[in-house]
Amino acid sequence: MRTRVTELLGIEFPVIQGGMIWCSGWELASAVSNAGGLGLIGSGSMYPEVLREQIRRCKNATQKPFGVNVPLLYPDIEQHMNIIAEEGVKMVFTSAGNPATWTAWLKERGITVVHVVANLKFALKCAQSGVDAIVAEGFEAGGHNGREETTTMCLIPMIREAVQLPLIAAGGIGSGAAMAAALCLGAEAVQVGSRFAATVESSAHEQFKQAIVKAGDGDTRLTLKELTPVRLIRNKFYQEIEAAYARGASTEELQELLGRGRAKKGMFEGDLEEGELEIGQVSATIHSIPHAAEVLQELVEGCKSRLKMLAEIC
Amino acid sequence: MRTRVTELLGIEFPVIQGGMIWCSGWELASAVSNAGGLGLIGSGSMYPEVLREQIRRCKNATQKPFGVNVPLLYPDIEQHMNIIAEEGVKMVFTSAGNPATWTAWLKERGITVVHVVANLKFALKCAQSGVDAIVAEGFEAGGHNGREETTTMCLIPMIREAVQLPLIAAGGIGSGAAMAAALCLGAEAVQVGSRFAATVESSAHEQFKQAIVKAGDGDTRLTLKELTPVRLIRNKFYQEIEAAYARGASTEELQELLGRGRAKKGMFEGDLEEGELEIGQVSATIHSIPHAAEVLQELVEGCKSRLKMLAEIC
Repeated sequence: MRTRVTELLGIEFPVIQGGMIWCSGWELASAVSNAGGLGLIGSGSMYPEVLREQIRRCKNATQKPFGVNVPLLYPDIEQHMNIIAEEGVKMVFTSAGNPATWTAWLKERGITVVHVVANLKFALKCAQSGVDAIVAEGFEAGGHNGREETTTMCLIPMIREAVQLPLIAAGGIGSGAAMAAALCLGAEAVQVGSRFAATVESSAHEQFKQAIVKAGDGDTRLTLKELTPVRLIRNKFYQEIEAAYARGASTEELQELLGRGRAKKGMFEGDLEEGELEIGQVSATIHSIPHAAEVLQELVEGCKSRLKMLAEIC
Repeated sequence: MRTRVTELLGIEFPVIQGGMIWCSGWELASAVSNAGGLGLIGSGSMYPEVLREQIRRCKNATQKPFGVNVPLLYPDIEQHMNIIAEEGVKMVFTSAGNPATWTAWLKERGITVVHVVANLKFALKCAQSGVDAIVAEGFEAGGHNGREETTTMCLIPMIREAVQLPLIAAGGIGSGAAMAAALCLGAEAVQVGSRFAATVESSAHEQFKQAIVKAGDGDTRLTLKELTPVRLIRNKFYQEIEAAYARGASTEELQELLGRGRAKKGMFEGDLEEGELEIGQVSATIHSIPHAAEVLQELVEGCKSRLKMLAEIC
């Protein structure tokens, strides 16, 4: 399964494990890289020195390529970028911000830059900013997302026809069948988050992993659109957000309700009531907590067999 | 391209043209059926005697199978169903209601029944109600939709694993690439609405067709979730809905704002400011107004070539 993305990233299979806060430390990233995909450390939940330690452990745990995801809205961003360069990380996935801000700085240091977008406008900005590839993430994806609400099914063909860069699809992809669908839409690789959040190597709290397994149809929502839109499980904290909307809360009141540390509380400490539980719609078809390598294998084998089977009936 | 759905409906290609208010009269339905898909008359915008006339004209215009879509929430429903039976229509697609209500009545009269759902709960109800097949429609679809906001990418695999009935995917499908993606997800056919709304044979107003061609990323929204959720273009009327929400309008006030005849005004009379313009997210990749047969051909040929090309790299 060679594509421009496997060539660019030097990986065997066109599968990237999304860099997720509180889920993807060195254990998950190295497990995915060792299995032939690209593992990403999610730096968004890490203090600078924690990130350095995680990168070092990942280098010890795998000889294969891995990368770091950096949400550009975080305050420690400069320290994060310096550590990434100092530690010799070869690939950075930037998200939640303008691709023009850091791309040149990273490229000057020989680092491959992939930027995550949720709409066409930022995909076009990526092309102008000199990034090496784009992750296009649909409305169904977990965590932070765009305001356009464009789904993976519509977003990938839209960006495919407008931008020449290598294209990675994200959002709603948790199986080989969905991976095959993403390739049909025009993607050259997939980025998978939620399915890897519920693996043995994920550093998420066991309670959160169980919540992912239990989630069904309609159990997540994209909310807090006035702040940074985020998809999360409709738990007690979500009900409080809904109640705040119902009484006409201001953006400041919503910010105060969100507070600090909600995601850590939910995803890392396992407080399923008061915590923020970021996960995608695809959680409704996640029923187990396997090893990351098993997930990768099902993705690749399921994708291949689906495409071969369908090509035969055509 | 034989699937359980082509067998059930007696059609050459696994493509159904969605039955859309103000767009799909006999001209569109017969054009699609003559080209080898299944055309559907959208009865939701028709008085009973108009429906009878449309069915008769469709019978004159094609020897191939065609059907009627019946939204179960419409007041004239009994008259509609009687006319459908009297005129010998062989296939009915029911939507916007409970599949248990009319399925037995239709099946007793030898009519094939397909029900449209937007969530897993109603897909399971379909299986209990004896329908012959399911259309599962994702959040990105135009017009009336579900409250769960589940996208096509997530909805199809979810229903595929839970229900054995023949499954038709809808929402976000306007090209052969997206059709191939839907088959990968587990669908056995696709239902295509928006792409057929912008064809020569569509009875939509020319201004509305042009609005579909002009629509870009983020230009539609699912709104009025307190009434029946509907996806429409963000025109002046949509801004008025937004303003109503911002001032905390009640459900009654929203109903009054919507009023009667908004969809006719927009889609049939071409009032792009005050009318309701129901269309899917996929409008962002619709750039032309071809004949319906050309759309069908691109869907089928594009789907085949995409699947064959991808099977080769696996």
